[in-house]
Amino acid sequence: MYELYYYPGNASITPHVLLEEIGAPFQLHLVERARNEQKSVAYKKLNPRGLIPVLVDGDTVLYETAAICLYLSDKHPDAALAPPCGTAERGHFYKWLMFLANTVHPDTLIYFYPERYTLEATGDVGVGAIKDAVEERLTEMFQFIDAQLVKGGPYLMGEQVSLADHYLLMLARWGRNMKTPPRDMRHLRRNVELMLARPAVQRALATEGLSAPIF
Amino acid sequence: MYELYYYPGNASITPHVLLEEIGAPFQLHLVERARNEQKSVAYKKLNPRGLIPVLVDGDTVLYETAAICLYLSDKHPDAALAPPCGTAERGHFYKWLMFLANTVHPDTLIYFYPERYTLEATGDVGVGAIKDAVEERLTEMFQFIDAQLVKGGPYLMGEQVSLADHYLLMLARWGRNMKTPPRDMRHLRRNVELMLARPAVQRALATEGLSAPIF
Repeated sequence: MYELYYYPGNASITPHVLLEEIGAPFQLHLVERARNEQKSVAYKKLNPRGLIPVLVDGDTVLYETAAICLYLSDKHPDAALAPPCGTAERGHFYKWLMFLANTVHPDTLIYFYPERYTLEATGDVGVGAIKDAVEERLTEMFQFIDAQLVKGGPYLMGEQVSLADHYLLMLARWGRNMKTPPRDMRHLRRNVELMLARPAVQRALATEGLSAPIF
Repeated sequence: MYELYYYPGNASITPHVLLEEIGAPFQLHLVERARNEQKSVAYKKLNPRGLIPVLVDGDTVLYETAAICLYLSDKHPDAALAPPCGTAERGHFYKWLMFLANTVHPDTLIYFYPERYTLEATGDVGVGAIKDAVEERLTEMFQFIDAQLVKGGPYLMGEQVSLADHYLLMLARWGRNMKTPPRDMRHLRRNVELMLARPAVQRALATEGLSAPIF
């Protein structure tokens, strides 16, 4: 049975949703962020980086959200979470997932924790200037995604849902308090609404206690 | 025949090396960065993000470095650039590649272009404080990789080379002017030296005109 170490609304939400999509038995372990449990010796045996999530699959212990998503997808081809390896579609799927995971996601972390990116003391004008710059960058990225969905939506891979859309839902949620949130972008909003209507997504959100407004 | 749009020493170096490892015929197109060609209308038809590299494989046009690497690897299983899909080893491979591509790589971009991450004017103290903070973060990341290689090297996947090592070579090279460069970390240095000794790597470096010190 899969075991997922999670915290409500954290990056664990995407693997959680995928486990619901797959329909395989799994067990959730809440990581007590209030006690900084993710930095504990015990947790760092699972993920030496001290980050959430971790997936345990028997002897296989994995971290890195996108890696866990790809691993689950490859193990359960019937769930059709990604195109098969070796196809052109797989290449385009990788393109989207990598863009989300290595461009949008890291900038979102700066948006939430700008103080990690400067040696100036928190509260200095510098921290605010970083957050504002990153919010501009993120808005441009979401607008780019929106423009791409005009050409070939409603999903990132066209007519076919993939785990990249689940990953996008998480990122769109994290941007919900920005001045120009993803929900204000028509095609992106349509994509997220389609994903939110999926029973697997609804179950994961309910389990994590996440209620509207989701994004 | 594959076509790769590249600039010497840019992120295109890893796909370039992989094409050499695979041994398939390919053609290189130099993107004239001095003329900002990557932002031209023609180039943006290949990659609307205006970034290098782009891989063209017949009708398939891909961007995002890690996506191109995974695509090439899946298409050429005989080159053994990654473990097969659906295995535990593939999961650990994804973990390493994602860590490199979504944590080390983005911070490296901030290290080179800190002014993109603040609304303060270039030259302000804020830009230097960002660069310094990111250099500290990157040093810690390289030390983490070094510590992991102690346990299970000489490659990221143990005894087996994978494209994650090629990706790491690129990142180690980009960190060569840091106060604590990756070459000063014993196990990381050993990893990079093993990769540099590979004929495919030597050919790609020579073609791009990159000479010692490489990292």
